[in-house]
Amino acid sequence: MSGGNETVGELGEFGLIAAVTSRMPATEAVLLGPGDDAAVVRAADGRVVATTDLLIEGRHFRRDWSGALDVGHKAAAQNLADVAAMGAVPTALLVGLGAPADLPVAWAEELADGLREECALVGATVAGGDVVASPTVVISVTALGDLQGRAPVRRDGARPGDVVAVCGRLGWAAAGLAVLSRGFRSPRVLVEAHRRPQPPYAAGPQAAELGAHAMCDVSDGLVQDLGHIAAASGVAVDLDPDALEVPAPFRDVGNALGVDPLRWLLAGGEDHALAAAFGPQVALPEGWRVVGRVLEGAGVRVGGRDVGELSDLLGTGGFDHFR
Amino acid sequence: MSGGNETVGELGEFGLIAAVTSRMPATEAVLLGPGDDAAVVRAADGRVVATTDLLIEGRHFRRDWSGALDVGHKAAAQNLADVAAMGAVPTALLVGLGAPADLPVAWAEELADGLREECALVGATVAGGDVVASPTVVISVTALGDLQGRAPVRRDGARPGDVVAVCGRLGWAAAGLAVLSRGFRSPRVLVEAHRRPQPPYAAGPQAAELGAHAMCDVSDGLVQDLGHIAAASGVAVDLDPDALEVPAPFRDVGNALGVDPLRWLLAGGEDHALAAAFGPQVALPEGWRVVGRVLEGAGVRVGGRDVGELSDLLGTGGFDHFR
Repeated sequence: MSGGNETVGELGEFGLIAAVTSRMPATEAVLLGPGDDAAVVRAADGRVVATTDLLIEGRHFRRDWSGALDVGHKAAAQNLADVAAMGAVPTALLVGLGAPADLPVAWAEELADGLREECALVGATVAGGDVVASPTVVISVTALGDLQGRAPVRRDGARPGDVVAVCGRLGWAAAGLAVLSRGFRSPRVLVEAHRRPQPPYAAGPQAAELGAHAMCDVSDGLVQDLGHIAAASGVAVDLDPDALEVPAPFRDVGNALGVDPLRWLLAGGEDHALAAAFGPQVALPEGWRVVGRVLEGAGVRVGGRDVGELSDLLGTGGFDHFR
Repeated sequence: MSGGNETVGELGEFGLIAAVTSRMPATEAVLLGPGDDAAVVRAADGRVVATTDLLIEGRHFRRDWSGALDVGHKAAAQNLADVAAMGAVPTALLVGLGAPADLPVAWAEELADGLREECALVGATVAGGDVVASPTVVISVTALGDLQGRAPVRRDGARPGDVVAVCGRLGWAAAGLAVLSRGFRSPRVLVEAHRRPQPPYAAGPQAAELGAHAMCDVSDGLVQDLGHIAAASGVAVDLDPDALEVPAPFRDVGNALGVDPLRWLLAGGEDHALAAAFGPQVALPEGWRVVGRVLEGAGVRVGGRDVGELSDLLGTGGFDHFR
């Protein structure tokens, strides 16, 4: 552990790499970890699932709203959830950190701790990375995963007659962000949900085993992400608003902020729930709840109403990074 | 192709993703490309080589010094070279782009073209990525590769008695950067070397087949990168300065700028040559040249002199991102 006041500029690139990589455990899947030109990761079934995200300070996190530990958890979670959404089990992360020279070493170390702890939930670890100087904090995360012999669950396999089911929380992170944006720090359960999502990792491979026809993680909002499944599959999705239970903490906050909580449920991203289309005969295990069905047609409807009619409720209808 | 004046903010996130991914060819190794939660890439021998880099505008490239096509080539090259330095063949890239809303779409498209063209040199393609808003241009690249059944060539296997050999250019990118930094735009061959490195990709798997004991790519400077091999292997490396031929364009530029060209050869990074330690009996193929030998001891020497004695020549002795 470095002293609390040392900066990454004082420690230098190689000291920082050593401080961060020393915090990462070895795992059976990582055959060669940090310290060489590249890592070597087991890909037991002859394929590797791979996904990458960029997180930019001020856009995806604020250091005054989230601690480094939370940022590490969140950066790992959003990529591990993408792996799970293919029906795969994550094996390793690669992480790039762009840091101003005056960033405290302790911040980078806590970031590494958050990445490690989130990885540990699925048995993965950080296998490699890069550290560079940057005017603001930038974090890139690549997650790798193992399909364990299963076919990947893509977005384009939903069929009319399927049920649409969700596992994991919807709208909690968005409600927490709304709270923080108005200058509040509570309800704590919502603020924590924004800082640190809780994706249902095991439900991804589980859905694949159950023969899910299509799946994605809910990163941009349920309506928008199901819109991707609908478009890729050439079908329509009709959501049942009565099936979307409004969590208790949403009501008071919605009243206080003048927001219909249904908006967070339908358009709130970043909880990284899993949404999947299953054949109607599939007996869904605990944790999955049916929220709609797949029909002939195109687009996403809510209780039979076109999303366009709900634009007041949904705002922009989801997240566009440039808007 | 988009109009020359459209910005990524006007086109939006999903339009930009479509514009960029439409430029990427399908390959046999990419089983599922862009458009889902994650890509699926063939990893035929049950392992995957993986490496990642972050490039920050103003630090790793300048838009007034390098065109987007060059930046794409360079971003791909530095990661593909890391894969080659393990003895592997690259299969796919994942690319994150952080872009200001006023970035011309044409810049992003040319970046994608550069990535595609550099990947094509090794039969790889871009399998996935992420696009986000950022105050400055940020590019993250992750490269994946296939060891084709070979053992990875690590940094820690050099043995006393080995020869040290290099394949590829040394110091050209550094000389080109020195030229640009002084406000010049020629000699063109050096400026081009800075903008677009030419790593000897095929020499990586070749060295592995020849039984190289250790290998790395020269990204931070020959002395510094061989220092990593020396430290990891618990040996010393003695470079023969007479074996380092000073390229013709270096002499005039060195005179004009008051720089000993040997500095670029010994401490200049970013050409992504490959440096490797081979047993003394190995017959090195064309392209590889012996530049030193491995001895008992520690550290890197040049003609028997300790690197510390050469600090005037070497400057800081290599590259630290925070210094």
